[in-house]
Amino acid sequence: MPISLGELAERFGCELIGDPDVIIDHVGSLSNAGPGALSFLSSSKFKKQLSSTKAAAVILRAADAKDATTAVLIDDNPYACYARMAAIICPAPTMTPGVHPSAVVSATANVADTAHIAANAVVEDNATIGENSYIGPGAVVGPNCVIGNNCRLNANVTFVRDVTIGDRCIFHSGSVVGADGFGNAMTEEGWVKVPQLGGVRVGDDVEIGSNTTIDCGAIDDTVIENGVRLDNLIQIGHNVHVGEHTAMATACAIAGSARIGKRCMFAGMVGMAGHIEVCDDVVVNGKGMISKSITEPGAYASNFPIEPVRDWNRRVAQFRRLDKLMDRVSALENKAK
Amino acid sequence: MPISLGELAERFGCELIGDPDVIIDHVGSLSNAGPGALSFLSSSKFKKQLSSTKAAAVILRAADAKDATTAVLIDDNPYACYARMAAIICPAPTMTPGVHPSAVVSATANVADTAHIAANAVVEDNATIGENSYIGPGAVVGPNCVIGNNCRLNANVTFVRDVTIGDRCIFHSGSVVGADGFGNAMTEEGWVKVPQLGGVRVGDDVEIGSNTTIDCGAIDDTVIENGVRLDNLIQIGHNVHVGEHTAMATACAIAGSARIGKRCMFAGMVGMAGHIEVCDDVVVNGKGMISKSITEPGAYASNFPIEPVRDWNRRVAQFRRLDKLMDRVSALENKAK
Amino acid sequence: MPISLGELAERFGCELIGDPDVIIDHVGSLSNAGPGALSFLSSSKFKKQLSSTKAAAVILRAADAKDATTAVLIDDNPYACYARMAAIICPAPTMTPGVHPSAVVSATANVADTAHIAANAVVEDNATIGENSYIGPGAVVGPNCVIGNNCRLNANVTFVRDVTIGDRCIFHSGSVVGADGFGNAMTEEGWVKVPQLGGVRVGDDVEIGSNTTIDCGAIDDTVIENGVRLDNLIQIGHNVHVGEHTAMATACAIAGSARIGKRCMFAGMVGMAGHIEVCDDVVVNGKGMISKSITEPGAYASNFPIEPVRDWNRRVAQFRRLDKLMDRVSALENKAK
Repeated sequence: MPISLGELAERFGCELIGDPDVIIDHVGSLSNAGPGALSFLSSSKFKKQLSSTKAAAVILRAADAKDATTAVLIDDNPYACYARMAAIICPAPTMTPGVHPSAVVSATANVADTAHIAANAVVEDNATIGENSYIGPGAVVGPNCVIGNNCRLNANVTFVRDVTIGDRCIFHSGSVVGADGFGNAMTEEGWVKVPQLGGVRVGDDVEIGSNTTIDCGAIDDTVIENGVRLDNLIQIGHNVHVGEHTAMATACAIAGSARIGKRCMFAGMVGMAGHIEVCDDVVVNGKGMISKSITEPGAYASNFPIEPVRDWNRRVAQFRRLDKLMDRVSALENKAK
Repeated sequence: MPISLGELAERFGCELIGDPDVIIDHVGSLSNAGPGALSFLSSSKFKKQLSSTKAAAVILRAADAKDATTAVLIDDNPYACYARMAAIICPAPTMTPGVHPSAVVSATANVADTAHIAANAVVEDNATIGENSYIGPGAVVGPNCVIGNNCRLNANVTFVRDVTIGDRCIFHSGSVVGADGFGNAMTEEGWVKVPQLGGVRVGDDVEIGSNTTIDCGAIDDTVIENGVRLDNLIQIGHNVHVGEHTAMATACAIAGSARIGKRCMFAGMVGMAGHIEVCDDVVVNGKGMISKSITEPGAYASNFPIEPVRDWNRRVAQFRRLDKLMDRVSALENKAK
Repeated sequence: MPISLGELAERFGCELIGDPDVIIDHVGSLSNAGPGALSFLSSSKFKKQLSSTKAAAVILRAADAKDATTAVLIDDNPYACYARMAAIICPAPTMTPGVHPSAVVSATANVADTAHIAANAVVEDNATIGENSYIGPGAVVGPNCVIGNNCRLNANVTFVRDVTIGDRCIFHSGSVVGADGFGNAMTEEGWVKVPQLGGVRVGDDVEIGSNTTIDCGAIDDTVIENGVRLDNLIQIGHNVHVGEHTAMATACAIAGSARIGKRCMFAGMVGMAGHIEVCDDVVVNGKGMISKSITEPGAYASNFPIEPVRDWNRRVAQFRRLDKLMDRVSALENKAK
């Protein structure tokens, strides 16, 4: 939706340096933007691109304004300001309410008139779909699920059963919510399946990535609080509890009954053992292994960056001779006494 | 299904301490159970919850009985006993046989009268669906697949082609079985695809997690033996062989032609290289890297737990100076001679 | 398709030692092949199987021919030669053009007459499906997607929107392409979603594994160049650029705006941080962590192989005492001065 720089500045409370009548009709990265595009500078690292960008205007911090060669919108948090403006300039496609003739909706389901059930989607018994919510092509909403208002379940999402989500949630394609947790009891005849009887409860404003899996609880529910963001291909085990505004990047795996606090940030490929806790405001670097509870906020790590194979193999060999090295040092100490 | 404590004790051969006429109608965790609920204590770690639980009865080991304040059912394996009793108290929903009108079943497929093919499922040419088996909404059973009796393929499961499974198997939503393995031959013009021509053979009583992938064999079949349990988001490469009752937690990745013995247990995020073997009864801790064959049963590990970033970075720097440290120790040794 | 050894040798320019009239009608592994089967020896490691194989003929390098007891086809690259011959001997099943009555195709979509749209597939507005391309059961091709000629999107694949792919591409079941990238701006009220407005551009001859996810770009497009091969359960973040003929094994995770060169090979479970670059011809071993740009071709690693838990735990404890060890060595050095 085209909008003038002046109106953007006024709506979002930014200072504008430049012509308020210039019309913005799309967004662009600093390097590829053209006339009519709004761009942003969120990190001074990319400041040198300010001199060459062809964007119509750039959102940036006051300290970076002097380096700009374009109109600027000044904001303390340029990335968030960009996010909000982009949502106005490039609104999501409008959705036509109604149930596609090829969709299958149970007679006992309760679908709001303003909801959209897309082609070949399935809504099973006693499921509820809220106002303005979208169930994409091939998506399945299982028995007793409750979808709030203004939610999106994109194509081929599966809610297995007994999943309750709040308002304004987004689930990306291929995500699976409410499948059985991994509960098995060993016996002399092999594994016995432990019935997985709990559900999944998800708050408001949650976004879940493609092919991410969130298992139902074994007895009580698995819980995802308000504002949580999970990237693609993440595993959330049964009875995990994820606190408000916690975000995880791709391929994290959280084992059953783990409890994660609020505002945590896990980089990609972090693993967390079951039945332990991470307190609020914990950051874990990529590939970190959380094997004990963390009680102090802060940043944690356990990953080794790659090195050329020859160097790496030498280091591993040295690592394996550490006990001998310690013995040699002890021997030297004894001699030196 | 409501059942009396006395009947539970008799059916499962437990000793009951308490009133046999008390009716159990659901299950509960020790901390959240209420009247009418059956709970269990599988680890003495949680024994202190025995004094406060409001459960009607608790399954536990004889040694823990004296600490109970409720009726108790005594069993040597409380978790397995709970699993079996919970399956009676909370039975799976009954399934209506038949093919949903929106499902598409090939004229050459062979579907048992007692099977259920759900809405928008697809059963392709020459596929066989056994007695009492359930094919969920949006699931696809590809050409020449054979599904045994009493199996469940949940919503949006995909069996690509030539997958044969035994009886009482469960495949969770989004799992993909029988897709092409990763076979590529390098040439001067780039990669040439190696046709993937084998199938997948799965035994009885196997359970496969959500979004887990099991590739077809390149020439011979990929094999999953009886009683195997795979959690979510696991990769099983072409021609892998997984032995009976082996269990893997989430996000393990097993490369092609790897062979894994019986009763192995891999924690989450374990990786295994191709064309190697792991013998029976091997346990691998979370994030372990199996790069050579293992011939001795036992527990293995290669993961570093997280530490505060400052500590961790110092250690990595020291690790990289290990060769210098070794040189310094050698110099001291020469001097001390 | 049955074919004589003589014809195979002629078509692919191999030297044949053996009877040219022998008919080959299937392929087999050295250990399991029977009469009529073509097999191959790509690594001398398996040379001892040459003496016992029952294959009709084996493709191998000239140097290995003297050990063969069967007819042989001699080629410098036996694996690639096998791949090409197997594609002739075991051709993919032929595909009937047409749209299945249960598929839902938008009136504004453009589907080639020679394409096949399978049962319960969905093709949305303004999508284009090229000649001889196959859209499998339950697959969804979202708005504005463009599928080239001779492509396969297998069952339950999802192209969310604005995905453009070239010719001869294969996407395996459960893969999700074009879903929103993980873009979130932190504010005092929690995360604000950053609209993900770019698309995905994929070249020719690309193959993408089951349940792999490739996100759309944030502003500009995510790009996968010609001939790229991605295994199962891989994550490609928004605005990643993967160069020609690069291959990644299962469960790699590439963070946003990473740039990977041509002909790279990543083993399984490699992680790569965002906004960095890997040059052409880089090999990364399994579980490697790429946290800085790589500018030199070569092989890199950062994984520790598993050891028995007792040994491993001792090493980790020693690792954590490295600073003390360094202090002790320094003290000895001072004393020895």
